[in-house]
Amino acid sequence: MSGIARSGRFARALHESAATFLSSLRFDWRLLQDDVKGSLAHVAMLKKSRIIPAGAAERISQGLQTILHEWEAGVLAPRPDWEDVHMNVEGRLQELIGEEAGYLHTARSRNDQVALDMHLYMLRQGGAIAAQCRELMMSLAALAQRTQEVIMPGYTHLQPAQPVRMAHHWLAYGSMFQRDYTRLMDWFERANVSPLGAGALAGTPYPTDPEYTRELLGLAHLYHNSLDAVSDRDYLLEFLGWASIFVVHVSRLAEELVLWSSREFQFIALGDAFSTGSSIMPQKKNPDVAELLRGKSGRIFGHLISLLTVMKGLPLAYNSDMQEDKEAIFDTVDTVQAILDILPPLLSDLTINPPRLQEAAVAQFSNATDLADRIAQEGVPFRQAHHRVGELVRLCVESGYQSFAEVPAEVWAQWAPAIPAAWIDELAPQQLADARQQSFATGKDSVARQLEEFTAWLNQLPEAGTV
Amino acid sequence: MSGIARSGRFARALHESAATFLSSLRFDWRLLQDDVKGSLAHVAMLKKSRIIPAGAAERISQGLQTILHEWEAGVLAPRPDWEDVHMNVEGRLQELIGEEAGYLHTARSRNDQVALDMHLYMLRQGGAIAAQCRELMMSLAALAQRTQEVIMPGYTHLQPAQPVRMAHHWLAYGSMFQRDYTRLMDWFERANVSPLGAGALAGTPYPTDPEYTRELLGLAHLYHNSLDAVSDRDYLLEFLGWASIFVVHVSRLAEELVLWSSREFQFIALGDAFSTGSSIMPQKKNPDVAELLRGKSGRIFGHLISLLTVMKGLPLAYNSDMQEDKEAIFDTVDTVQAILDILPPLLSDLTINPPRLQEAAVAQFSNATDLADRIAQEGVPFRQAHHRVGELVRLCVESGYQSFAEVPAEVWAQWAPAIPAAWIDELAPQQLADARQQSFATGKDSVARQLEEFTAWLNQLPEAGTV
Amino acid sequence: MSGIARSGRFARALHESAATFLSSLRFDWRLLQDDVKGSLAHVAMLKKSRIIPAGAAERISQGLQTILHEWEAGVLAPRPDWEDVHMNVEGRLQELIGEEAGYLHTARSRNDQVALDMHLYMLRQGGAIAAQCRELMMSLAALAQRTQEVIMPGYTHLQPAQPVRMAHHWLAYGSMFQRDYTRLMDWFERANVSPLGAGALAGTPYPTDPEYTRELLGLAHLYHNSLDAVSDRDYLLEFLGWASIFVVHVSRLAEELVLWSSREFQFIALGDAFSTGSSIMPQKKNPDVAELLRGKSGRIFGHLISLLTVMKGLPLAYNSDMQEDKEAIFDTVDTVQAILDILPPLLSDLTINPPRLQEAAVAQFSNATDLADRIAQEGVPFRQAHHRVGELVRLCVESGYQSFAEVPAEVWAQWAPAIPAAWIDELAPQQLADARQQSFATGKDSVARQLEEFTAWLNQLPEAGTV
Amino acid sequence: MSGIARSGRFARALHESAATFLSSLRFDWRLLQDDVKGSLAHVAMLKKSRIIPAGAAERISQGLQTILHEWEAGVLAPRPDWEDVHMNVEGRLQELIGEEAGYLHTARSRNDQVALDMHLYMLRQGGAIAAQCRELMMSLAALAQRTQEVIMPGYTHLQPAQPVRMAHHWLAYGSMFQRDYTRLMDWFERANVSPLGAGALAGTPYPTDPEYTRELLGLAHLYHNSLDAVSDRDYLLEFLGWASIFVVHVSRLAEELVLWSSREFQFIALGDAFSTGSSIMPQKKNPDVAELLRGKSGRIFGHLISLLTVMKGLPLAYNSDMQEDKEAIFDTVDTVQAILDILPPLLSDLTINPPRLQEAAVAQFSNATDLADRIAQEGVPFRQAHHRVGELVRLCVESGYQSFAEVPAEVWAQWAPAIPAAWIDELAPQQLADARQQSFATGKDSVARQLEEFTAWLNQLPEAGTV
Repeated sequence: MSGIARSGRFARALHESAATFLSSLRFDWRLLQDDVKGSLAHVAMLKKSRIIPAGAAERISQGLQTILHEWEAGVLAPRPDWEDVHMNVEGRLQELIGEEAGYLHTARSRNDQVALDMHLYMLRQGGAIAAQCRELMMSLAALAQRTQEVIMPGYTHLQPAQPVRMAHHWLAYGSMFQRDYTRLMDWFERANVSPLGAGALAGTPYPTDPEYTRELLGLAHLYHNSLDAVSDRDYLLEFLGWASIFVVHVSRLAEELVLWSSREFQFIALGDAFSTGSSIMPQKKNPDVAELLRGKSGRIFGHLISLLTVMKGLPLAYNSDMQEDKEAIFDTVDTVQAILDILPPLLSDLTINPPRLQEAAVAQFSNATDLADRIAQEGVPFRQAHHRVGELVRLCVESGYQSFAEVPAEVWAQWAPAIPAAWIDELAPQQLADARQQSFATGKDSVARQLEEFTAWLNQLPEAGTV
Repeated sequence: MSGIARSGRFARALHESAATFLSSLRFDWRLLQDDVKGSLAHVAMLKKSRIIPAGAAERISQGLQTILHEWEAGVLAPRPDWEDVHMNVEGRLQELIGEEAGYLHTARSRNDQVALDMHLYMLRQGGAIAAQCRELMMSLAALAQRTQEVIMPGYTHLQPAQPVRMAHHWLAYGSMFQRDYTRLMDWFERANVSPLGAGALAGTPYPTDPEYTRELLGLAHLYHNSLDAVSDRDYLLEFLGWASIFVVHVSRLAEELVLWSSREFQFIALGDAFSTGSSIMPQKKNPDVAELLRGKSGRIFGHLISLLTVMKGLPLAYNSDMQEDKEAIFDTVDTVQAILDILPPLLSDLTINPPRLQEAAVAQFSNATDLADRIAQEGVPFRQAHHRVGELVRLCVESGYQSFAEVPAEVWAQWAPAIPAAWIDELAPQQLADARQQSFATGKDSVARQLEEFTAWLNQLPEAGTV
Repeated sequence: MSGIARSGRFARALHESAATFLSSLRFDWRLLQDDVKGSLAHVAMLKKSRIIPAGAAERISQGLQTILHEWEAGVLAPRPDWEDVHMNVEGRLQELIGEEAGYLHTARSRNDQVALDMHLYMLRQGGAIAAQCRELMMSLAALAQRTQEVIMPGYTHLQPAQPVRMAHHWLAYGSMFQRDYTRLMDWFERANVSPLGAGALAGTPYPTDPEYTRELLGLAHLYHNSLDAVSDRDYLLEFLGWASIFVVHVSRLAEELVLWSSREFQFIALGDAFSTGSSIMPQKKNPDVAELLRGKSGRIFGHLISLLTVMKGLPLAYNSDMQEDKEAIFDTVDTVQAILDILPPLLSDLTINPPRLQEAAVAQFSNATDLADRIAQEGVPFRQAHHRVGELVRLCVESGYQSFAEVPAEVWAQWAPAIPAAWIDELAPQQLADARQQSFATGKDSVARQLEEFTAWLNQLPEAGTV
Repeated sequence: MSGIARSGRFARALHESAATFLSSLRFDWRLLQDDVKGSLAHVAMLKKSRIIPAGAAERISQGLQTILHEWEAGVLAPRPDWEDVHMNVEGRLQELIGEEAGYLHTARSRNDQVALDMHLYMLRQGGAIAAQCRELMMSLAALAQRTQEVIMPGYTHLQPAQPVRMAHHWLAYGSMFQRDYTRLMDWFERANVSPLGAGALAGTPYPTDPEYTRELLGLAHLYHNSLDAVSDRDYLLEFLGWASIFVVHVSRLAEELVLWSSREFQFIALGDAFSTGSSIMPQKKNPDVAELLRGKSGRIFGHLISLLTVMKGLPLAYNSDMQEDKEAIFDTVDTVQAILDILPPLLSDLTINPPRLQEAAVAQFSNATDLADRIAQEGVPFRQAHHRVGELVRLCVESGYQSFAEVPAEVWAQWAPAIPAAWIDELAPQQLADARQQSFATGKDSVARQLEEFTAWLNQLPEAGTV
């Protein structure tokens, strides 16, 4: 961002509507601490490299510290006539220490300055989001802990398929968010790069020391190429892609919360603290929060498309179109954090309805696969066994039986003389679940081990504030 | 939007993070006037239909008028503890007139209320945008007026193709925005529908008169179906689609402004009032405004995808996900209006460089097609003529000639004995342009007629404030 | 599209990977009939305007007719070495009539030729889609016809809100598709424009007659501006926007089909002819078709974003990026038509379960709003009545009653002495529905009138093949 | 589940339009080798675990090998009546070995089978893409190698900013593709997971050994959770996000190729083998390939949005919507590979125009920043120096001088007595570039070192076929 800086080059002032159009102050104020932090590192380097007078450097540092304190104390208000946060910092610095403030811009361009601010901001937020993700996974682990013995229907196509432990279902979301976590860590490493020293695009003729500022700022790497350093938005695009996958997971979970709390399912009840009523219908208890969680996906996909579109086809290096990155990113960060604020307490506040879940697991022939498997174990190829059981299901449905167990022994003997009725008894939901003993399956021991490993992994993650 | 209304149904208060998550006050405050206008019509109907006491209706009306005046005078501040604009109006009304305020919600739900507010808002903004579009087209017509005699290269593939009048080029944008205007008018008709009276989703058991409120509000139609009335977002999606095509046009125009003001093209200069400098490079005069105009396309495409995603797969009728429509729509309206604020003065402030344009029109064999046409007129099938001229271009390029006119007569006689050199003289840019006389072509009279018709059409459009 | 035509200008052949990259034959073959139709009109005009010899014109026409017949008879195969459909037509024509085929390209460019082909194609498909939309609405009207007396719960937030007639619910979709139809008609008018005669971008120096070809082709308008004519993709973008809203409607309907055919809802059963089984679970009857209908929305949104992205920031006039329009459009047309092929028979094949719907309508206090309304009719402001009923709901829930009707008279007398139990009896689902008598509401007469008007509107629409 | 398997459960056949709608054979045929490979591992495990008879297992293996050979030999044609690739393999196997083929489906579902096929396919393609990326970076390194001494203007806002080495510019793209490569490697690790054994969703009751099949297939990990294993599309979404960022890079590079080969820039010439002509304009040499490379971004963004939309809000586990993943993914893979096929030869075939680049680097005061820096070195705060130089630029522009060097000594002495004219001489483009000596800057040694490190990194990457 070259800002709206105007040198003596211009004979006329900026048109009022242009000034408004270009102004970024309404959204970039949140970068203040990152901007000051970056400037502190820059001025320290200028001093160390003897590029500016030591005294001026010290006064600039003190002025910047003052600004930071004013901001933290809430007494620094943005001034609209200074069109962005950077001009606000510069302007305030000049008020505080006078013309010497001008030294701060030595050997630095608005381009590398803004690029640095965004990196610092994103790393700060990325760390916070990682910690919040951990909290979310903790709440899923807790849900899994209390639902290990709850049997429910596992669904495909929203039709009961095979019984599963409810813990197994929660842990599926645990796996999704675990992947989100590892992708965020990979991103973090890639975002952890300093552009400071790239100047406008080509480096600077001063004897600066970009490695020194990088180290002062605690960043892991330096960009390899200064043109790239000022025009790279990959780490922002990757973050938006990250967030898009994350909200897909959230939307799937939210959909299930809406479904499961419906009158028709009644698998769970959302806490009163996370439900709302209706202005007109007194009986309503609406899953507004879950619906809005589901709907937030639209916003994030939109921001992703927004920045992809902005970047498409831009020649090197910096172009002002790139200023459009900020609002998309800031709203994404805010939205992700809001989602992560609300999901853990909402999940902890769920009421589970095990009898209803058990009943649903029994219904509708969810043991049919296992009956076919049982037949296959007698040496019949699975395809044929599958077809035979399908016919039995149709006979039951046509005769009004809701499960194999309901069929009277004499009817069964007539329909399926080769299938002992005792086999049916062995195909109760819990038995079916426990028969599945692969490491990732829904058997009792399998799920217990999955939970154990998940919890162990969670426990070794850094807590909030330590990333 | 059912709001966060809570009846006696709930034993516990809303979780703090849920309240924040659901609150819409930070963005829906702008609907205040529409909300009050809708409520005024509703209460007038309740009174006329004798559903509520006449005296209460009058006091409610007066209270609402007071709120509107307070809002217009800037003395009404949003209160965060009332989570949206509707609760703010209700709460303030109760402060003003007491418990009787409760009558206002009779025979109305938050669902039809919010749906109405959005219709009123969109029609208000749509009318303003139409008027701004007209201004933009006026400025293009003015540019065309002053560039009818300016010849420039017409481009395909960013390579000079055939000479065109610059007026013709501006009028191409005129055609695009003209289509935008007609699409907006079609949209306006479709958005001009009243949902008031649909209640939560099914109508209301009161003897209300939705036709009466529709007429009071000056809306053209009533929804056919109350379930649809509260869950329809088509007119918002269509508006976002409208805006997306509009910003495609803007981005194309902006791209040309950036290209044409580059040092390499130098076809135009942007006014100082619409250019910016660099914080570090004193010589820079940057087309920031044009770049940002180009980049704004991302934001709008994003909002379109956002609302499409939100609506995808939602069962009937209202779901809280739909609350996500507002920010996408509001930012789109703001962005379109900002673009339309800045484009007309920016275009009026352009400096055109006719000599440079003329020179570019001459260069690089832009008369080659016409030479082929000329040969074809002698009876040679066009495909062969085309190939022959292609060979001549290659000979010129290999020999270092930049145009046919540069080739010495004796060389030409050797290369192309069958092509009289005089033909070349007749193929100067202006002649080439004027030879194209179809109604939509670039000939002098054609362009003059296009401009005349465009202007006549513009002149019969309603001015601002009259749509 | 400038094609991969190579004049004598080039010393080297196209790189093999470039030829593959640029080739469009694998997808543009479907334009053959439109291309030939356009060429027939063009050659008729060339003859009439005496631009080419009459004899050549006639032989070209006959050759083109032959090609069309070959194509219709399925004996014309695309040849990959001719990289697109246009080169295939040209090449075949030359085989048929020799060098005279070269005259066809006189006064025409690939740019206006391809632009015309796409207009002809889109109008052809648009007409077919309109007719299919009518069929879909017919099947919804038929469903509404048979479900006028079926009472079901109307939902908001996927929670039962108020009872509605099922016909009312189907007619809500009728309204959505009716809007789609009118939007398609508006689009049709705007797409109905001829670019032929625009040449490469500037018109042509020949005395052509674009009005004549426009009329021959049955197109309504001529473009106003030739630069615009060859670079306009608005009608394609608008169509993609149209299709995106259409698939939102489809996805909502499909979601309800999936929900309603779940074991938990059991409101409907999909026909066996529209359900599938599982390779492993013999009992499964999966709503695959409905799920895939829901999922198709992604594809269409994607195509919309695709073409918006392509067009963003392109300078005038034609650029090869625009070639990317075709696959997005063709797949959208195919997908919309496939959806419209399958939805009407699928809907006609639904089994409705009225007892289950009625039962669901009774449950869960869906008469609570009306009880509050009833109380309000005694003069209590609605807000207070709403709160009072909310408390009663909570008492019921805490005491295990599923509806007000279940509460014993003595308990009710204690809880709500001011509310006569008789009121409750009057609040049965059908009564509640019938109490809603606004024109768009769910009352018996209202719905009957809605259906009547919808059917009358449908009956006056043109049938397939007549648009 | 892609199949349309039907057990005895169904009384009626699938509706013809439904069969067409659900069929995936037209696009999933390409999975054949992956499907067979997966089945070979599965049957080996069934045999080892003694789940099916050893003899049957051997005959199945031989049959599968036969199918693979038939496919490789091109003699296996897809049969449309078998609706997908999996049914084709099964059907063909049954033809080859009879009813025993039915054993293959023991302890496996279509869900884990298809999930595995996609993992195998993606890993295969991902490896190929990585190798192609390496080739692309090699060609950029080669370009950088030959342009280390070429000075050109570095641009911001498409305005000359500061002189840079052309090698530095190419290496900026090198950095982008290097990030792409590392992101692809991270993705590869995450995609490298086996779902086989998850069954339909819950595991299977057979004593299978998923670790054994994982190892046979050479996959790195096993999913942690079987529900997740069959419904996870994260690795596909992440790949689409990867490809979207990649095509942003490609579109930026392509935009510069288009710009630079324009008549106005003339920085480069595209090879004839990568340029096309016009069907009507014989002089045209169009950068079609570069334009199409730029336009391909739309397609990829579209596919990303498509799959995000599909996945949004789906409940666990498998739903048929997910079948929509395939076409989006396959076209993305094809497009990325086509781009990577064409870019390296295209870049190798560029003609660079150093004199023109040098001339452009001199023009338009691109040494202004350095003049301001020079003044600042005398102790003037940079902000003031910047303003002073801006005024000098304006004086020059107003007086018609194109560079400081053009200003006569006496005029300069009058305008800027404090600035020795000798300073100007020291500010020639090459000197300016070389003054920038940070590791990532444009100085001679800096760029040489960047190239060296880039090449060293490239040289240690695995070659094609070894990932």
